[in-house]
Amino acid sequence: MEAMMIYVPAILAILGLLYMWFKRSWVMKQDAGDGKMLEISSHIYEGALAFLKAEYRLLTIFVIGASIALAVIAFVVPTTHWLIIVAFIFGAFFSALAGNMGMKIATQTNVRTTQAARTSLPQALKVSFGGGTVMGLGVAGLAVLGLSAFFIFFFYYFMNGEWTNTAQMTVVLETLAGFSLGAESIALFARVGGGIYTKAADVGADLVGKVEAGIPEDDPRNPATIADNVGDNVGDVAGMGADLFGSYVATVLAAMVLGNYIIEDMGGDITSEGFGGIGPILLPIAIAGAGIIISIIGTLLVKIKDNSAKENEVQRALNIGNWVSIALVAVTSFFLVKWMLPETTMKMGFFVGGSEGFNYVTIPSMRVFYATLVGIGVGGLISAFTEYYTGLGKKPVLSIVQNSSTGAATNIIAGLSTGMISTFSSVLLFAAAIWASYGLAGFYGVAMAASAMMATTAMQLAIDAFGPIADNAGGIAEMSELPAEVRERTDILDSVGNTTAATGKGFAIASAALTSLALFAAYVTFTRIDGINIFKAPVLAMLFVGGMVPVVFSALAMSSVGKAAMQMVNEVRRQFREIPGILEGTAKPEYDKCVEISTNAALKEMLLPGILTIGFPVAIAFLPMIFGYDNLLIAEMLGGYMAGVTVSGVLWAIFQNNAGGAWDNAKKSFEAGVLINGEMTYKGSDAHKAAVTGDTVGDPFKDTSGPSMNILIKLTCLIGLVLAPILGGHTVDAEDVREETPENATGAFNTEENNDNTLAILTSEESRLSVNFLKRP
Amino acid sequence: MEAMMIYVPAILAILGLLYMWFKRSWVMKQDAGDGKMLEISSHIYEGALAFLKAEYRLLTIFVIGASIALAVIAFVVPTTHWLIIVAFIFGAFFSALAGNMGMKIATQTNVRTTQAARTSLPQALKVSFGGGTVMGLGVAGLAVLGLSAFFIFFFYYFMNGEWTNTAQMTVVLETLAGFSLGAESIALFARVGGGIYTKAADVGADLVGKVEAGIPEDDPRNPATIADNVGDNVGDVAGMGADLFGSYVATVLAAMVLGNYIIEDMGGDITSEGFGGIGPILLPIAIAGAGIIISIIGTLLVKIKDNSAKENEVQRALNIGNWVSIALVAVTSFFLVKWMLPETTMKMGFFVGGSEGFNYVTIPSMRVFYATLVGIGVGGLISAFTEYYTGLGKKPVLSIVQNSSTGAATNIIAGLSTGMISTFSSVLLFAAAIWASYGLAGFYGVAMAASAMMATTAMQLAIDAFGPIADNAGGIAEMSELPAEVRERTDILDSVGNTTAATGKGFAIASAALTSLALFAAYVTFTRIDGINIFKAPVLAMLFVGGMVPVVFSALAMSSVGKAAMQMVNEVRRQFREIPGILEGTAKPEYDKCVEISTNAALKEMLLPGILTIGFPVAIAFLPMIFGYDNLLIAEMLGGYMAGVTVSGVLWAIFQNNAGGAWDNAKKSFEAGVLINGEMTYKGSDAHKAAVTGDTVGDPFKDTSGPSMNILIKLTCLIGLVLAPILGGHTVDAEDVREETPENATGAFNTEENNDNTLAILTSEESRLSVNFLKRP
Repeated sequence: MEAMMIYVPAILAILGLLYMWFKRSWVMKQDAGDGKMLEISSHIYEGALAFLKAEYRLLTIFVIGASIALAVIAFVVPTTHWLIIVAFIFGAFFSALAGNMGMKIATQTNVRTTQAARTSLPQALKVSFGGGTVMGLGVAGLAVLGLSAFFIFFFYYFMNGEWTNTAQMTVVLETLAGFSLGAESIALFARVGGGIYTKAADVGADLVGKVEAGIPEDDPRNPATIADNVGDNVGDVAGMGADLFGSYVATVLAAMVLGNYIIEDMGGDITSEGFGGIGPILLPIAIAGAGIIISIIGTLLVKIKDNSAKENEVQRALNIGNWVSIALVAVTSFFLVKWMLPETTMKMGFFVGGSEGFNYVTIPSMRVFYATLVGIGVGGLISAFTEYYTGLGKKPVLSIVQNSSTGAATNIIAGLSTGMISTFSSVLLFAAAIWASYGLAGFYGVAMAASAMMATTAMQLAIDAFGPIADNAGGIAEMSELPAEVRERTDILDSVGNTTAATGKGFAIASAALTSLALFAAYVTFTRIDGINIFKAPVLAMLFVGGMVPVVFSALAMSSVGKAAMQMVNEVRRQFREIPGILEGTAKPEYDKCVEISTNAALKEMLLPGILTIGFPVAIAFLPMIFGYDNLLIAEMLGGYMAGVTVSGVLWAIFQNNAGGAWDNAKKSFEAGVLINGEMTYKGSDAHKAAVTGDTVGDPFKDTSGPSMNILIKLTCLIGLVLAPILGGHTVDAEDVREETPENATGAFNTEENNDNTLAILTSEESRLSVNFLKRP
Repeated sequence: MEAMMIYVPAILAILGLLYMWFKRSWVMKQDAGDGKMLEISSHIYEGALAFLKAEYRLLTIFVIGASIALAVIAFVVPTTHWLIIVAFIFGAFFSALAGNMGMKIATQTNVRTTQAARTSLPQALKVSFGGGTVMGLGVAGLAVLGLSAFFIFFFYYFMNGEWTNTAQMTVVLETLAGFSLGAESIALFARVGGGIYTKAADVGADLVGKVEAGIPEDDPRNPATIADNVGDNVGDVAGMGADLFGSYVATVLAAMVLGNYIIEDMGGDITSEGFGGIGPILLPIAIAGAGIIISIIGTLLVKIKDNSAKENEVQRALNIGNWVSIALVAVTSFFLVKWMLPETTMKMGFFVGGSEGFNYVTIPSMRVFYATLVGIGVGGLISAFTEYYTGLGKKPVLSIVQNSSTGAATNIIAGLSTGMISTFSSVLLFAAAIWASYGLAGFYGVAMAASAMMATTAMQLAIDAFGPIADNAGGIAEMSELPAEVRERTDILDSVGNTTAATGKGFAIASAALTSLALFAAYVTFTRIDGINIFKAPVLAMLFVGGMVPVVFSALAMSSVGKAAMQMVNEVRRQFREIPGILEGTAKPEYDKCVEISTNAALKEMLLPGILTIGFPVAIAFLPMIFGYDNLLIAEMLGGYMAGVTVSGVLWAIFQNNAGGAWDNAKKSFEAGVLINGEMTYKGSDAHKAAVTGDTVGDPFKDTSGPSMNILIKLTCLIGLVLAPILGGHTVDAEDVREETPENATGAFNTEENNDNTLAILTSEESRLSVNFLKRP
């Protein structure tokens, strides 16, 4: 069993995908309604496909370009193997495939949910959550399958499937990083492009439809309404899916990298400990595999019985599924840690710095388990914080409501303050989590905390994706003029979906933050630099530059929405003007024109932020080389940049997401009526108008620039990781690795006897690197 | 001459103060007008005095409290001398005195400017700029006088006025840091409190007066109008003055600290190089002293002749004075550097890190001069950037104007984007400046760049302070119902003042950023840690926490303005309701009630941000001690926190200042009319209303939270510097320093023969510290 463990995660992933297929068939068998419902839903489906098609065209170009760049790197740099290109392409392909499957199922579940809502609420929940489950399992299953399959392949390719030494394993994992890079690159397009798409359509539809023409939301007479509904899927389903796909893969990868360094710290060989000597490397992917099965169990628990149930009951059903799966992850982690890690002999190098280098401490395996508990705790707490700062009826939202009574300006100030102040608790939580999980088990602990948090990704995504499906279902009900009770039922689901969307964003930020930290740690160990010292002026300068990039990125994303929305407004105005009878409902609007505008804008406006994200780390890595800077200094500079992006990006993500969420719910508060200065105030009041202004500002905050911070920080750290072998004290030529026989290599990094035999297997390029290598036995 | 150089800066400062006194007498001799003018101006004067009185009461309590805290530190920590308390109290006192003088002259120059404007524009400029000059010279003169006098005192007290060794000089400079801490503490109160005061009054006066009652700005019937005019002085004069006073002192201090380390790097004794062996330490204060005389020359050049001059001519007059003084600083720096620094033998330790420690490089003195040019360049460029992003008729402001046509939401989004995107150029500039000045002459180069930039502080402040004086003068003209031509003339000055206010804010940010960097470098050298390594998880955690604090601080400041403005609104409404005849002009409003509200709110609301600023670094320094953390690790953690605050604080300062400035001018654009979609649009249009909303959001951004970032980052780094001896590898007992005779000590740190005789004079507390000491010869 132990030796076969390497195959288990892949098998679990396949099981998850099989269950997904079964669930998908069930959903597709549901009644898809008739007449107008079908027509509208097929418009949405086609709009989504149109976006996907256009996106894939662009992606293909990007993937080809990036592959060429990687090929150049692999050609020039002896430590980078060309297989990284294959991994990259597959990472991109799997991520795109997951997005494709998710979008398709979401746009086909929506109308089935509407139809189900005609019979009962429990059935509507079952169908919509079923669609979410398909999405969640598709993403998680493909992530684990891709990662574990490539790991097995590289393990056999580079190491003949048997432990040799940590240097060769480093090559395996470095090549595997290509898979993660591919996945995260797609996420950039899906998250940022999706964010621009959805808000351009939303703002455009609202400005002309609701404000100028005075027709309600989701009215079929509005030419932008299909684009708006497509946008929900493009942004909230595909974007979120790609985001979490990327986090999932990157987290597990980083934990595997750091697991390899545990083996190095323990002497370079722990084959006697079982699991082919790669227990610490396998553990994160084993937890991820188990998480898929656990998530299936969790989704089975999400159901309600009572047709007269309200939001609370639906929310409780989701919570039960969520909590049970989180608890099961904790329990499973306990047993997996106990089983897979050396119980008492695990050694970790804690970085002391300076001439003292590393301080080696023996860590009982249970401390890794405690670190996973820290991660699970962070996931829970960050969602709770997000809910507090953005939830209906909570103090911050009520305060924004009060401030709406004196106009838009005070509403805006209150919303901005809420977002800003909300960084306090979340950042302290992150800081405490870094501290605690590092204290427990070094950076491996940090990465394992992230891995444990991400283990329920499938469940989280199911909960997330069900929201936009329900939202769409409501839109279809409205556009098809179905009885009011149908809309009431979908509204209950939609309302719960709004809450889960906010907490889901919290989860996504937390995952991005922890993932980046893990990648950051993996980067430093890959480059073998003496940490990242911001007392070196060039490093400090890059910390500043890194801090600036998320701010400028956000600004670009925001103004992209503005530009695209303006195009949409002009197009809708044109249609109202040029197509007679459109407002009377006798003529059909040209939906596809609006879909096209959103699609093109999303793809075009994505370029500049994309260049910013990719260009800066590449420039920092290569420009100073021209000036003859030392490679290790450049590695530190890039590390400083990564830290700047991460710290500032996390702050701006929390700020923008929570401000946007709070504004949204402040506006929603007026629907049920709010008490301002002793008077009940409703929709249509001046205060409500001020709240609508706040919500419009918040829209790009929470759906475009805010969430794209996640991608920015992860992608930055991943690019750093891929560039690491070029910069850092890498000493094994990737092409040579296969030539080494295990016998020669085993034990090369044994701590007890390092200084004399370490260099034997090294084709060291420069003596500096060798010296550097010796410093960290 | 060389040996007397230590006295020269103090003498120059006294000369500056004498000239200030002469200028003050001239201003006071000007005609102060009559009747209503005098009445109104005395209301403003008394309001300002009321604020100062209340502020001093609170300050006294604070200074006593802080002195006790310092006394405890001095008692417990052998390396901190009790004289730091005296320096602290004087620093606070001098800063408060400078603020007092500035406020008094400003509130007395305003009415004299109004009166002068009745005769001619050149005369009005002469009077208002005269007031500004008094303010500028008062601040700069007291800063240089205080700093140099205390340096002389400590130099004699601790070292008998003769060079002994760098360890003793470190004690001198550590004690001198108390002066800087006192000054910056006052700045916290003046800048943050002043910011809250001025915006509470402004927003309150506008919301009820302009919007509800429909009376014009500065109308004497508005009860809050006096508070509003007082606010201009409290915020823009006293706040800005305290800010730059603090920067000035801190920059010079940091450069002196780093100068001491040059001497250490050169072998611990350069008495043969002249200047009593302290040339590199004296240089920054010499440049500061010269800057005072240069600023006087600059102010003499600011004049116009033509009574029909417009904004451009006035601006040109100010520019000539500014440019000439900047050029003179460059020339003077050249000669001072050549004269005071060892020309070819200067050695600097460039930090390499790890076991390699420092890399010693010989630096020709001219490279320090080039570093000062970098600083001067930063000062100029940052002002140019600020003007571009906030200037009337420039692309960013025009874009906000265009976006106002579709409502307040798009105006807000455009303004936020402008502020965010403006961080790009400024941060790249800072990064380049850090890189260049460090590359030229290490952190001493960075500090000297800052010192050179700050040398024209008196001139900068004169230009800055003249704005609010002219603004007040216009208000008095309006309230006294003087002929329109008077208001026209003051409006020209006011309009130029708005531009100088924006560029002045850019200067203040740049100075704060460079000052913080210099303090940061001084901190690291004081604590003798191996740099600040963010690969250590606790350090990374603190980087996160530091990044968060400016965001939360800004939120607190913003919501303080909201709360205080709401009180003001209620009070003005009450007066309109309860005092009959107030709107008809037959009854007098109770101005003092509004002044009281602003005053109390400013002082009360300042507490929480103040606690945040002071509490976090203190907690980071002492809490981990309880958990038994190593002092050097704590020092690194505090350093990580400082870096986080600096990076994030600079970003948020630029973002908020520029967004606020751009919104302000977008609104102002409507006064002359703007072309939107081919139509001229004016005040009163819907687009203008949207722009007013944006400006209201921007008010606390640019006048409260934005500028207070400067204080936050400087004060954080100063607190770190004062705590440094407690944490870091300090080895000399301050009380023992006086007992050492120069003979024993000289040459103790000689690089060539360090390992054997270094420890002779050290009363080393722990062997770790000694080891640490040896590592950096």
